[in-house]
Amino acid sequence: MTDPLFDKVCLIGLGLLGSSLGLATKRGRLAKTIVGADQDADVCARAKKIGFVDDASPDLAAAVEGADLIILCTPVGTYTALGETMAPHLKPGAILTDVGSVKGDVVKSVGPHVPDGVHFIPAHPVAGTEKSGPEAGFAELFDGRWSIITPLPGTEKSALDRLTTYWVGLGAKVEMMDPEHHDLVLAITSHIPHLIAYNIVGTAADLETVTQSEVIKFSAGGFRDFTRIAASNPDMWRDVFLSNKEAVLEMLGRFSEDLSALQRAIRWEDGEALHDLFTRTREIRKGIIEAGQE
Amino acid sequence: MTDPLFDKVCLIGLGLLGSSLGLATKRGRLAKTIVGADQDADVCARAKKIGFVDDASPDLAAAVEGADLIILCTPVGTYTALGETMAPHLKPGAILTDVGSVKGDVVKSVGPHVPDGVHFIPAHPVAGTEKSGPEAGFAELFDGRWSIITPLPGTEKSALDRLTTYWVGLGAKVEMMDPEHHDLVLAITSHIPHLIAYNIVGTAADLETVTQSEVIKFSAGGFRDFTRIAASNPDMWRDVFLSNKEAVLEMLGRFSEDLSALQRAIRWEDGEALHDLFTRTREIRKGIIEAGQE
Repeated sequence: MTDPLFDKVCLIGLGLLGSSLGLATKRGRLAKTIVGADQDADVCARAKKIGFVDDASPDLAAAVEGADLIILCTPVGTYTALGETMAPHLKPGAILTDVGSVKGDVVKSVGPHVPDGVHFIPAHPVAGTEKSGPEAGFAELFDGRWSIITPLPGTEKSALDRLTTYWVGLGAKVEMMDPEHHDLVLAITSHIPHLIAYNIVGTAADLETVTQSEVIKFSAGGFRDFTRIAASNPDMWRDVFLSNKEAVLEMLGRFSEDLSALQRAIRWEDGEALHDLFTRTREIRKGIIEAGQE
Repeated sequence: MTDPLFDKVCLIGLGLLGSSLGLATKRGRLAKTIVGADQDADVCARAKKIGFVDDASPDLAAAVEGADLIILCTPVGTYTALGETMAPHLKPGAILTDVGSVKGDVVKSVGPHVPDGVHFIPAHPVAGTEKSGPEAGFAELFDGRWSIITPLPGTEKSALDRLTTYWVGLGAKVEMMDPEHHDLVLAITSHIPHLIAYNIVGTAADLETVTQSEVIKFSAGGFRDFTRIAASNPDMWRDVFLSNKEAVLEMLGRFSEDLSALQRAIRWEDGEALHDLFTRTREIRKGIIEAGQE
């Protein structure tokens, strides 16, 4: 048997992503040891009990010590502080990466703290569920999904290759992108969908003419799919919107423009315009099914 | 064994709803005979082959002849013409109902054509999928879902009871509502969710900075759930928006107002406002799960 890809993998943040990474890393036999760090000691204890880490504690410095691969799995708003704290303890030659949904801001907030000799390569697996916590993880989360790696100018090829091999070992397909383009793509494929899901659930909750119990009872007509998305981790999503502000506002502007046109078509009873759009959107669905991403 | 609830049930329109009704009616042994009518002769042939109707043809007059229960399962925009054509052929004592997603407009468009002695009782099962056509149906579609019946002033209790028994026999739970309130409730729980799903998929398709293939590849971050909804039947949905215009515009106004507030919170980096909303929306999800509607 060949040696695992890494001697020591360190997962920082032991929620849905951290636990899924632990389980998939074990499944792929990609590390000799997996250690976890989480500010919540109770979460650390649960993680050890579930068994997706060999050890876990709130002591960040001890956790990253000697690790070959360190993965940030906390909301992106915590990265600056984590970067500062862990910097002096990172091993030369180690790879520091993350799974955050935003990349441009992460480069700016973590980059300056990374010591020479440590390979900082941001990444983002486009996979998840609305569940949170160490019990939410599963080894198959990344199977067949895309993981986007955003190498920086000067990223060493050998380190990039190792990180790519790791993601493939976790079951993912890998795409390279620059951080700014990533943030634009994800704004439309993930951030705006979450924003409007949160928004409509909020709108429904505030109505006076329709009761909350009616909204719940009759949610099978479409609404319930939005509530699933709008049940996602609030800390994580607040940070996403704050740290990908420009791209989100740009895409939101387009969404609102298009929605106004649709509103106008309804007001003026332009059935043809409605039918045209509703036919066009079917094609995109077909593409997703053909690409195996449904 | 007791006699079935109806001697002859007539399904008009043999798509997702018509086929599911046929299958569920057979499963519940609720009719001696089920006949279907669809303007598309090929659809009629496929329906007979699948076997959810005992007979089917494009001849509407022949299909409704002698039927005890007639159910309109076509897009609501077709109802006026269908009502006119079938009126002279309806049997006295028959129940005429439908499964349309809008009720106020249906009362106005069909009501005047209904002959004396025929019980016109609009209804709407809050259940469906994004699939269309006679092959899309399944007997379990209504199991545990709510069917809303909107009796009119003067609706006979015995007819209403029979229709209620029928829906319960199909696996559904039944709620009574007046047509106007139905349209308001469904505007927020179904029509607006569909409208914004169609809209975001359209926005994504029109971007120049992000390619269509990127949108498809990275759709697992939330977008793909919207594409599923936006793959629903275009004829049906055009008719829904045109015939529930007032309620849809009212709810859309609220949605847009709330979205502007959210946009402002992002622009001004008001993390607390975002976090508050994202926490509140989780509760609604919990309610839906507790109500068994997820």
